[in-house]
Amino acid sequence: MYISVIGGSNCDDKIAETAYRVGKLIAERGAILVCGGLSGVMDAAARGVKDGGGISVGILPDKTRERASKYLTIALPTGIGYARNALVTQAGDVVIAIGGQYGTLSEIGFALNVGKSVVGLHTWELKKPGQLLKTVIKAQTPEEAVDKAFELAKEE
Amino acid sequence: MYISVIGGSNCDDKIAETAYRVGKLIAERGAILVCGGLSGVMDAAARGVKDGGGISVGILPDKTRERASKYLTIALPTGIGYARNALVTQAGDVVIAIGGQYGTLSEIGFALNVGKSVVGLHTWELKKPGQLLKTVIKAQTPEEAVDKAFELAKEE
Amino acid sequence: MYISVIGGSNCDDKIAETAYRVGKLIAERGAILVCGGLSGVMDAAARGVKDGGGISVGILPDKTRERASKYLTIALPTGIGYARNALVTQAGDVVIAIGGQYGTLSEIGFALNVGKSVVGLHTWELKKPGQLLKTVIKAQTPEEAVDKAFELAKEE
Amino acid sequence: MYISVIGGSNCDDKIAETAYRVGKLIAERGAILVCGGLSGVMDAAARGVKDGGGISVGILPDKTRERASKYLTIALPTGIGYARNALVTQAGDVVIAIGGQYGTLSEIGFALNVGKSVVGLHTWELKKPGQLLKTVIKAQTPEEAVDKAFELAKEE
Repeated sequence: MYISVIGGSNCDDKIAETAYRVGKLIAERGAILVCGGLSGVMDAAARGVKDGGGISVGILPDKTRERASKYLTIALPTGIGYARNALVTQAGDVVIAIGGQYGTLSEIGFALNVGKSVVGLHTWELKKPGQLLKTVIKAQTPEEAVDKAFELAKEE
Repeated sequence: MYISVIGGSNCDDKIAETAYRVGKLIAERGAILVCGGLSGVMDAAARGVKDGGGISVGILPDKTRERASKYLTIALPTGIGYARNALVTQAGDVVIAIGGQYGTLSEIGFALNVGKSVVGLHTWELKKPGQLLKTVIKAQTPEEAVDKAFELAKEE
Repeated sequence: MYISVIGGSNCDDKIAETAYRVGKLIAERGAILVCGGLSGVMDAAARGVKDGGGISVGILPDKTRERASKYLTIALPTGIGYARNALVTQAGDVVIAIGGQYGTLSEIGFALNVGKSVVGLHTWELKKPGQLLKTVIKAQTPEEAVDKAFELAKEE
Repeated sequence: MYISVIGGSNCDDKIAETAYRVGKLIAERGAILVCGGLSGVMDAAARGVKDGGGISVGILPDKTRERASKYLTIALPTGIGYARNALVTQAGDVVIAIGGQYGTLSEIGFALNVGKSVVGLHTWELKKPGQLLKTVIKAQTPEEAVDKAFELAKEE
C-alpha cells in the first residue's frame, strides 16, 4: 500500500509533530509513504517513516536532490516544478493532507479529481455552493487519520 | 495578455452562458484565452472567443485532438493527463474560474501557489482555519470578472 | 494541420536561414507551427511564420515568457523544464528536425516513439545495430522538407 | 547513488539477461536503480536488483500499477505518459542504456541534454555530421557498464 502525505514546506511545530506521527504510523503499519520530498510537513513525515523503520519516497520539483529531506529513503528529482504535485497524489492509493497552503490545495484537487480519497488534519475546508461533493474527510488525530486512510485504501 | 479560463467539462446552461460571455469579452478586449480545451466551460469560452474575433488555446490532457472543442484557434494535445492542469494556469497572467469541480480546484491551487490571482464566478469557496490567505476573488457577472482580471494582470 | 519544428537554441546562420524558410513555407501552406519557443532554430522558424502570415506556438520550458521568441503568435510558459520536449512533438501531426543537439535528439526519440514521422535537415543520423527501424527521413532543402512533411501528415 | 537503467519494454533473452546482470551488480554495489517500471529491460533489471538485495524504483507512464514489474521495490504511477521518460533520466546520477528502441532514444537525448553521462550496451549509435559531441559511451559487458557508470557518477 502507498499513502501520499501532502502539506506545506513551511509549518509550525505542532503540524510538524502531527506529520512525524503520521509518518511513523504509516511505516509501522507497513505502507510506503510518498511525499513531495522537501522541508516542513514532508521532512517531518519522512523522519517519522525513518523512525518507524519504513520506506519513504520524495518526488521533488527540482532537477537536483539539494533541497531533499535527508530522512527520505528515495529522493527523486523531476525538474518539472510544481506539476510534480499531480504525481505525488497519483502515486498514492489514498492521500493524507496535513496543514498546507496553496500547493496542498492543488494536490487535494488533483487527488479528488482522479477519484482518490483525502483524509485531512488541520487543512483546507472546501465548499461549492449548491452542490454536494466528495470532499476532504476530517480527522482529529494522526491515529485517526492513518486508520481512516488504511480503511479507504482497502475499499479501492 | 493571456487569461486562463478554468472550469468543468460538464456544466449547466447558465454556467455555459457565463463562460461564453467571459470568452467573448476577453477576445473583444484583445487578450488571448488559454483553457483545458475540452467540453463544458472550456468549449463555451472558446465559442465566445471565436464570436469575439479573438484567439483561444486549448491545452489537452489527451494524446490526440479528438475531444478538443471545435471552437479553439489552437488545440494542443499533451498526453500528460491531468498534470496538464498545472500548464493551463501557468500560461495565464491571471486566472478566471467558472463553476468547476475537482479539476478546477486543483487549478485554483496551482494558480495561487505560483502567485497568480484567481477571479471566481460561482466556483469553490476556500477556507483555512486560523489563517488569512489570498484566495479566490469573487465576481458576480462576466463583465465584473473580466474587468477584475484585466486590472490584476496589469498589476503583475 | 500542425507541424512541430525542432532544433537547437544555438545555431549558425545557415541553419537559422533554413529554419526561417521552413517556417515561412509552413505558414504559406496554411499549417500551424509548434516549437519550443526559445532562440536559435525556434526563433528563426517563428520569424518565418510571421513573414508568411501564419500562426506559431511556442511551448516554453520556463515559468515565464522572458526567453520567448518575440516572433511567436502564442507563447506558453509551462514550468516543466525539458519535459516540455515531449509536448512539442506530441502537438504536431508530423515533425521537422533542423540541426539541433541533445534536446533535439530527445524530441526525435519522442516523436518516433509515439508513431510520428520525422523529416530531418542537417540533423542526427541514427543507427541501431542489427535492426531495421523507422528513422529520420532526410531532406536536402526547406522546400523538400515541407513537401515531405505535408505528405506524411496527410497519410496519418 | 542513483543509476537510471533504460531500455525497451520488449527485448530478446540476451538483452534481458544483460539487464538482469546490470541490475544485480548495481544492487550489490549499493546504488539505487531507477527505471521506467514496465516489462522487458525494466523488468529484468528490477529482477536483478531484487536478487542482489537492493532497491529499485519504477516511474510508470500509467495512472495505475497494473503494468508494473512485480520485482520493483517501489512502483510510482504518474499518469503523464511517455513524458515520464524525462523523469527517469533526471532521477539518475548516471544512465545505463541497454538495447532499446525510440523511447530509449528519447531518454538518451534527455540524459545528454541535462549533462548526464550515458553508458550503452547494444544500444543506439548516434552521429551528427560535422560536429564532435558527447555521446553514448560503449560498454561490452554488464560488468564494464556498471564499472563505467560508477566512475562517471563519482566524477559528477
